Amino acid sequence: MLTLIYLIAITAEAMSGALSAGRRNMDIFGVAVIAFVTALGGGTVRDVILGHFPIGWTQHPEYVGLVVFAGLLTMLLAPQMHKLRRVFLLLDAMGLVAFSLIGCDVALRMGYALPVVVMAGMITGICGGVLRDVLCNQVPVVFQRELYAMVSLVVCCLFLGLRALEVNQALNTVLSFAVGLTLRMLAIWRCWRLPTFSYQQRWD
Amino acid sequence: MLTLIYLIAITAEAMSGALSAGRRNMDIFGVAVIAFVTALGGGTVRDVILGHFPIGWTQHPEYVGLVVFAGLLTMLLAPQMHKLRRVFLLLDAMGLVAFSLIGCDVALRMGYALPVVVMAGMITGICGGVLRDVLCNQVPVVFQRELYAMVSLVVCCLFLGLRALEVNQALNTVLSFAVGLTLRMLAIWRCWRLPTFSYQQRWD
Amino acid sequence: MLTLIYLIAITAEAMSGALSAGRRNMDIFGVAVIAFVTALGGGTVRDVILGHFPIGWTQHPEYVGLVVFAGLLTMLLAPQMHKLRRVFLLLDAMGLVAFSLIGCDVALRMGYALPVVVMAGMITGICGGVLRDVLCNQVPVVFQRELYAMVSLVVCCLFLGLRALEVNQALNTVLSFAVGLTLRMLAIWRCWRLPTFSYQQRWD
Repeated sequence: MLTLIYLIAITAEAMSGALSAGRRNMDIFGVAVIAFVTALGGGTVRDVILGHFPIGWTQHPEYVGLVVFAGLLTMLLAPQMHKLRRVFLLLDAMGLVAFSLIGCDVALRMGYALPVVVMAGMITGICGGVLRDVLCNQVPVVFQRELYAMVSLVVCCLFLGLRALEVNQALNTVLSFAVGLTLRMLAIWRCWRLPTFSYQQRWD
Repeated sequence: MLTLIYLIAITAEAMSGALSAGRRNMDIFGVAVIAFVTALGGGTVRDVILGHFPIGWTQHPEYVGLVVFAGLLTMLLAPQMHKLRRVFLLLDAMGLVAFSLIGCDVALRMGYALPVVVMAGMITGICGGVLRDVLCNQVPVVFQRELYAMVSLVVCCLFLGLRALEVNQALNTVLSFAVGLTLRMLAIWRCWRLPTFSYQQRWD
Repeated sequence: MLTLIYLIAITAEAMSGALSAGRRNMDIFGVAVIAFVTALGGGTVRDVILGHFPIGWTQHPEYVGLVVFAGLLTMLLAPQMHKLRRVFLLLDAMGLVAFSLIGCDVALRMGYALPVVVMAGMITGICGGVLRDVLCNQVPVVFQRELYAMVSLVVCCLFLGLRALEVNQALNTVLSFAVGLTLRMLAIWRCWRLPTFSYQQRWD
């Protein structure tokens, strides 16, 4: 089940990467790279930081094929993408939540302390988008826009909280997933944002 | 002793990260991430490059808490920060020197060759600031401003030189620290810079 | 033989890094860092992703010396560099092809699946240039310009194809190298490009 959601998630992330590449007028190779990095970069950073080798996608080259294909397909679908806006945001939200839960799971299996588990979940959830934005030469949107990374944090904490209460793992996953997805969709719908910090003084 | 200086150092680095995030109008989550990356990113890159797993902060989640707290606190202190300019630059310089010495120490324990030890020191000292600037979408200041990375190089070489002369480790650390701190403060005070390289021809 | 080409390659890459640093008016330290990252960053990223520790250059500190020296020398040669344009592009193309073959070789020895081997070759070939451009705060040129990364892909696939046909390794290397170099020089000469993807709609 989580695998299916994971496949949907990396596809949605790959498409978001391809659109970002298109905004920079990249060639089809650039589109494929950005799609790959957006979809699988978060898990790669997590695995490197946790010392979890071999890295996930090296054992599943078919995932690489999927995200590259999704990225290239996006070039054809692009003129219609804005009509699919809502579907796309839903898939992207599912991706964020699924990535967060998978990241927690990997770190838990490796025996890391709970704060590190939460960070592993968040790294998996948001680093793909951060790498996408760095490669497209812009300030990462996850640090500026409506609740995104915070959803990842909430999902990870909820999952660990229910786990500490010895809730059944499958039920826990479903609950965390549902809460995270709802929170993200509400955040988009109501434009919930975190307060921002603006500091323009120059002195160093 | 070096641990205390290390804690001061990561706090100062976290605050510098938070101010950079503020210049990009990030939300509080972005502030926390940039603070974390600036403070602990250098050590993370060093550990990954040296293959030194598990990575430092995963074994000390309290450091993550400290730097996130310092980053968020900076949002409150920001209006007064320019008054604290000198204290802040001093703390930042202490951080640079402490990071460099700690980086050398990690690489030495792992048995790397001396040039790699020097690079490990410099990576620890400057990569946090480089990552901060990349995430804030600007050219890293350490490559352009008054002596900063060069201080790290001098500290690492001095430390290894005194070590080769079999100077007592504690004395060596104190001496290297003092020289590095003095050099950095002089560089700020006298605006010492390295020569720059300007190349504007376009041909490729 | 491949070692000699490798040394030429990292020298050429270091020089390209130094010129990029010069376009950003970096100081000599920044020039040295960008030269290092451009020349050895691709191999570093490959080694980290494959979990191939210790990382190549940590076992050959003399390579670090070479690329830093090449970077600094470029500052002196810069006024004449445009006269050397053709030589430089040839060296850079040799670097791209050599890096790709070396990357494949490392992944093959580690027993990775063939798609991962191809990716290891491409990562080695192009990541140095990507890191250079990210640190110089621009969109990576390899995602936008005439056939570059595609050359790396062709070289890796050809190499693996001939290997599957049990062609002698030395002959295979020479053939793959020749085809890759020819393809890259033709691409520069005839301005071959991949189609680009342009997407300017804003909706998320």
